[in-house]
Amino acid sequence: MKARVTVMLKSGVLDPQGKAIGQALGRLGFSGVGDVRQGKVIELDIDETEQTRARARLSEMCEKLLANTVIENYAIELQ
Amino acid sequence: MKARVTVMLKSGVLDPQGKAIGQALGRLGFSGVGDVRQGKVIELDIDETEQTRARARLSEMCEKLLANTVIENYAIELQ
Repeated sequence: MKARVTVMLKSGVLDPQGKAIGQALGRLGFSGVGDVRQGKVIELDIDETEQTRARARLSEMCEKLLANTVIENYAIELQ
Repeated sequence: MKARVTVMLKSGVLDPQGKAIGQALGRLGFSGVGDVRQGKVIELDIDETEQTRARARLSEMCEKLLANTVIENYAIELQ
């Protein structure tokens, strides 16, 4: 099963990368760009066919490795 | 309008970050994890209400700044 995990900084946490992108867009002439946040996306192929179990396993991966849950949120999408 | 841009390395391009994540998952005891790819996701707030124009503007941002189209693909989702 293919899965996609999206990891974003929590909303209160300062995001310098996002800020840099926003400023660079402004310098390139793109006006009207508001808040920009950058996160990461991880696409995995796991040998699990059952949705609930796949989701549980992916959550565990996120908690242990993929996300820093102190400052980041994660979302799991199964495909 | 809120938009999300996902930038991933093209399929033929080596992805050392993804590989490192796959190996780390293996070391942590997560078996049965196949191909892992890592990309980035950028969430933007743009002052455009019309879908087609928003998409055109975001494509231009991707071509000019957000993605390196030699080695990366990008996908735009409007919310």
